[in-house]
Amino acid sequence: MHTSIATVCLSGTLEEKLEAVASAGFDGVEIFTQDLVVSPTAPEELRERAGDLGLSLDLYQPFRNGVELDPVAFDDALRRLHRTGDLMGRLGTETLLVCSNVSPDAVADDDLVAEQLHRMGDVAAEHGIRLAYEALAWGTHVNGHDHAHRLVLAADHPHVGTCLDSFHILSAGGDPSSIEEMDPGRIFFVQLADAPLMHLDPLSWSRHHRVFPGEGDFDLVDVMARLVRSGYAGPISLEIFNDSFRQADVHRTAVDGLRSLRWLEDRTRAALAPEIGSGRTRDRLELQPLPAISAPSGWDFVELRTTDLGDTTRLLHRLGFRLGGHHRSKEVQVWLQGSARIVVSEAGGSTRREPHIDPRERTDAHSVAEVSGLGFELSDPGAAFQRSTALGSAPVPRHELPGEAPLRGVWAPDGTEIFFGPTPDGSAPGWLSEFGVEEDALGTSDLITGIDHVNVAQRWQHYDEGVLFYTSVLGLGSTPAQDVPGPSGLVRSQVMRSPDDAVRLPLNLAPTAAEQGSFVGVAYPEHIALASEDVREVARRAIHRGLEFLEIPENYYEDLVTRFGLDEETVSELRELNLLYDRDEHGEFLHFYTRTLGDVFMEVVERRGYRGFGAEDAPVRLAAQYRLRSART
Amino acid sequence: MHTSIATVCLSGTLEEKLEAVASAGFDGVEIFTQDLVVSPTAPEELRERAGDLGLSLDLYQPFRNGVELDPVAFDDALRRLHRTGDLMGRLGTETLLVCSNVSPDAVADDDLVAEQLHRMGDVAAEHGIRLAYEALAWGTHVNGHDHAHRLVLAADHPHVGTCLDSFHILSAGGDPSSIEEMDPGRIFFVQLADAPLMHLDPLSWSRHHRVFPGEGDFDLVDVMARLVRSGYAGPISLEIFNDSFRQADVHRTAVDGLRSLRWLEDRTRAALAPEIGSGRTRDRLELQPLPAISAPSGWDFVELRTTDLGDTTRLLHRLGFRLGGHHRSKEVQVWLQGSARIVVSEAGGSTRREPHIDPRERTDAHSVAEVSGLGFELSDPGAAFQRSTALGSAPVPRHELPGEAPLRGVWAPDGTEIFFGPTPDGSAPGWLSEFGVEEDALGTSDLITGIDHVNVAQRWQHYDEGVLFYTSVLGLGSTPAQDVPGPSGLVRSQVMRSPDDAVRLPLNLAPTAAEQGSFVGVAYPEHIALASEDVREVARRAIHRGLEFLEIPENYYEDLVTRFGLDEETVSELRELNLLYDRDEHGEFLHFYTRTLGDVFMEVVERRGYRGFGAEDAPVRLAAQYRLRSART
Repeated sequence: MHTSIATVCLSGTLEEKLEAVASAGFDGVEIFTQDLVVSPTAPEELRERAGDLGLSLDLYQPFRNGVELDPVAFDDALRRLHRTGDLMGRLGTETLLVCSNVSPDAVADDDLVAEQLHRMGDVAAEHGIRLAYEALAWGTHVNGHDHAHRLVLAADHPHVGTCLDSFHILSAGGDPSSIEEMDPGRIFFVQLADAPLMHLDPLSWSRHHRVFPGEGDFDLVDVMARLVRSGYAGPISLEIFNDSFRQADVHRTAVDGLRSLRWLEDRTRAALAPEIGSGRTRDRLELQPLPAISAPSGWDFVELRTTDLGDTTRLLHRLGFRLGGHHRSKEVQVWLQGSARIVVSEAGGSTRREPHIDPRERTDAHSVAEVSGLGFELSDPGAAFQRSTALGSAPVPRHELPGEAPLRGVWAPDGTEIFFGPTPDGSAPGWLSEFGVEEDALGTSDLITGIDHVNVAQRWQHYDEGVLFYTSVLGLGSTPAQDVPGPSGLVRSQVMRSPDDAVRLPLNLAPTAAEQGSFVGVAYPEHIALASEDVREVARRAIHRGLEFLEIPENYYEDLVTRFGLDEETVSELRELNLLYDRDEHGEFLHFYTRTLGDVFMEVVERRGYRGFGAEDAPVRLAAQYRLRSART
Repeated sequence: MHTSIATVCLSGTLEEKLEAVASAGFDGVEIFTQDLVVSPTAPEELRERAGDLGLSLDLYQPFRNGVELDPVAFDDALRRLHRTGDLMGRLGTETLLVCSNVSPDAVADDDLVAEQLHRMGDVAAEHGIRLAYEALAWGTHVNGHDHAHRLVLAADHPHVGTCLDSFHILSAGGDPSSIEEMDPGRIFFVQLADAPLMHLDPLSWSRHHRVFPGEGDFDLVDVMARLVRSGYAGPISLEIFNDSFRQADVHRTAVDGLRSLRWLEDRTRAALAPEIGSGRTRDRLELQPLPAISAPSGWDFVELRTTDLGDTTRLLHRLGFRLGGHHRSKEVQVWLQGSARIVVSEAGGSTRREPHIDPRERTDAHSVAEVSGLGFELSDPGAAFQRSTALGSAPVPRHELPGEAPLRGVWAPDGTEIFFGPTPDGSAPGWLSEFGVEEDALGTSDLITGIDHVNVAQRWQHYDEGVLFYTSVLGLGSTPAQDVPGPSGLVRSQVMRSPDDAVRLPLNLAPTAAEQGSFVGVAYPEHIALASEDVREVARRAIHRGLEFLEIPENYYEDLVTRFGLDEETVSELRELNLLYDRDEHGEFLHFYTRTLGDVFMEVVERRGYRGFGAEDAPVRLAAQYRLRSART
């Protein structure tokens, strides 16, 4: 598959964009007119630079309001087309995107449009270029891909074809099934864009909210499958107008973009496998599969990196964790309870690659405690690692001594180290022996039984990227996002979960420019939620051991009675133990929060059938954390 | 008029909100349930605190899904209502907002709903509270204000009335004219919210995009006028769900909110003046007028504050400005050309009150050049000053020596000092004599004739606030916003202009969290655009004097030929002089940009009938500025 991306997706100068696109591994690029116009690089020089980078310049775009015109305006359009043809000659670009007309003056006359396209085809032929006519969803008269295709057929010119754009097709409720019936020789170009479903006018939706395939709600596998069936063999290109991408670092957006295409290619290949295998469909796009997905069967470990070793281990002890031991060659210790394994590493400061906190905004640059790594148990760790690197993730460098279990990992877009471990044969993973943990030292009747979920903060520029990473690499599914109000703004929360719920990973997007309290978004605390079947007993013992709970206001407990009609006895026990309570149609939920340490806190949860994450209680937590932080600063 | 605001509009803790609301000058407040639930302050204590602050607690809200229910659910709603009544007794709040039901299980039976409202009225009476039933725009069955009002009339209970919310009425396309016919004794509460017109589902629109009156597109003067005609005399309250307000500093949001109500009150009073004067309408809301608006008739001066005095004055000299003189008592000088007066003040660093740049993000904290003040010529400067302070603006402290012209000013939300000067009798303002400028020293045939526009950057949290400030204080009108793409993100631009175009003030909103190039949003350059009738001659002389122009790429000139069909001779002159070109249906536009100095640059423009601001050329400028900045860092 020839992969391409429009320069308009990316931030920076045209020269920076080309470099990032090439280094991410794309085959080609679409040149957006405005990117060229603002650039000091001459077209010939750009052609040469692209060549040096191994990139083809697949498309020049857009040629606007150039067709569906009255005769005077059309003459001027032909003049512009001649100039554009000259320019494309210098660029060495063959295909020009011609958009359907969006002006109120556009002429609604299919015969005339076909004739104009034909005349434009003659000009294109003179310049050795070809025209890909595209129906914009908000085109005045031509706004359906079938209509544009009919006009192309009527124009009947070898230099005139159509361009298909998944956003324009799907946002307007178009039926992509007709793609299969199209003459692939008439499809000159394909642009892909995904988008979240919104009830918004198509123009605003398209200009600001497009995302890469897999980051939105459109069924792009279906579109791709139909393209393959049609016999199309040309470039597959990303054209994403997105406010965040325009601000984000150009290199990571390019990596994110190629990941989305590789993922889509893999999914489409899988969906079409029976047809291709039986020869019913010929795969002229040459879709390449990725190493198979290996969904996590559980948490291998969570790593906390801390400069406050005393505070961190005291917190774990008070929650009932036992020190398993110290690693024989690294400054790392492991704490155990049930199947929860918390690796604590000593750090002189944050080493997270992409801190979720702007380092300038930390309250205390010298005191760090953060979730730095997530270890997953997988049936095939090697395949998972290969899949993730094929999807553009950078490997985490690790030193292993002879005899130590190999452990490979990559960086998630949020800067967390993601490790791929094997699903253990017995009750505990083999690597514990490197910490001197004896098999019989493992607890069998611990109050905390394992990890319920881990909550990771995302920076807003990388939220969609994070969702796609966890989807494409680990096969986690996403649930609809929820907004949680806090004193410094809304916190967006979206839960990623493995198919059997063995792993739950809520991603939180905190406001980054909050000026009230300089709290959320500035240092949005992440957390590890531990599972228990008796959270009240965990809380009782923790109180005895001196754990600092997050204090819950009395008004909350009174509201619990109003909302749920709980009896006074139940509520007074909750109050005494600092517990919070929620309920859904599946059952009850009891939980408590510890105070924040560095940028992380712990939660202990007891699910009695409940499937949520206590979103109703999150505002109470955010307000309490805000008050503590305000009191400190 | 009794002014009120819902706590949900504001950031911070409940205690911080109350303090900010009182200090902004509101009369009362609506308590949002969740704000109380997350607060450690007991209801009685809160009542006392509000009393100390001089605030009434006007409404407790919302009581959700409490009506339109099956009998079992309704029993539980009554139980909740009893508990809520108890709580309101402790709070000392009389009115409870009851929302129409949004659940798919809501019962569509008007007789039943009226009966349920009546039974709820009995419970309310027991607790000495009253219920204000409101139709949400997305209510399952009750989603129109007329419908809710009919149900209230049918319930026929002295403790049951209706709550009107302008957003729910206008977003659903409701007709507010029926408000006039309502029994004012049945209107228990009024909430106001404005919003930009969007094609978005009402729930998302309401939850994220509400703004204060005057900051959106709804006709709230009409709603208010109808309320006055109805005879309503109760609180007028703001209920604004807005993502930005939730993050912004609570004090400034409160000031912004009260400004919007005072402005609305004034506008409504003016609209109703004939009716009230003739006794046809009785103003039971007691609307107070503001000092009359005085639209600027021109620019008195623009003040540049700089640490680079040499560079700044060199730039002015190269543009043809003459040093008018030095102020006799301040470290300030004035530069003159045509009617353009640039006051240059020496500063040890930024003294702008609300820097548009986060000080931590400046490239060079020691080199500052910025637009620090805007002086306007007004027919009644005293009234303008009084109006602005009545609208909550803080006066700028100034020291004047005896014999010096008094000059009063306030801070705009963006931190610029806004000065209200008199419209001069002669050709030049009297204050020039303080700089030792002689009348006959004023040029009469300067190439630069005056100030065309001044472009001021806004921080994103304060954009709507800025628009309302310039609208309400100076009577500027706003044009629809435009997005301009730059290498670090979209820059939103909205032009504020006086009715006769004597003053044009584009407000620019730059991305604040850009990570690409750390340029725009971080130090978005502002600018002063100077008017000339011969920009080519200005450019020629400036070249001769060594002005550093912003360099325009050759690709831009080639594209000009393509777009406009300009001849080679014209284009080669543009190229030679670093000029840019645009055209609209009114005429042509020629202009050039200087390089940026600190955070400001200059533009010289020649309008040949053209009415725009060269938005097509802004991306070229942004890209060039980005390249220069990248090269420097």
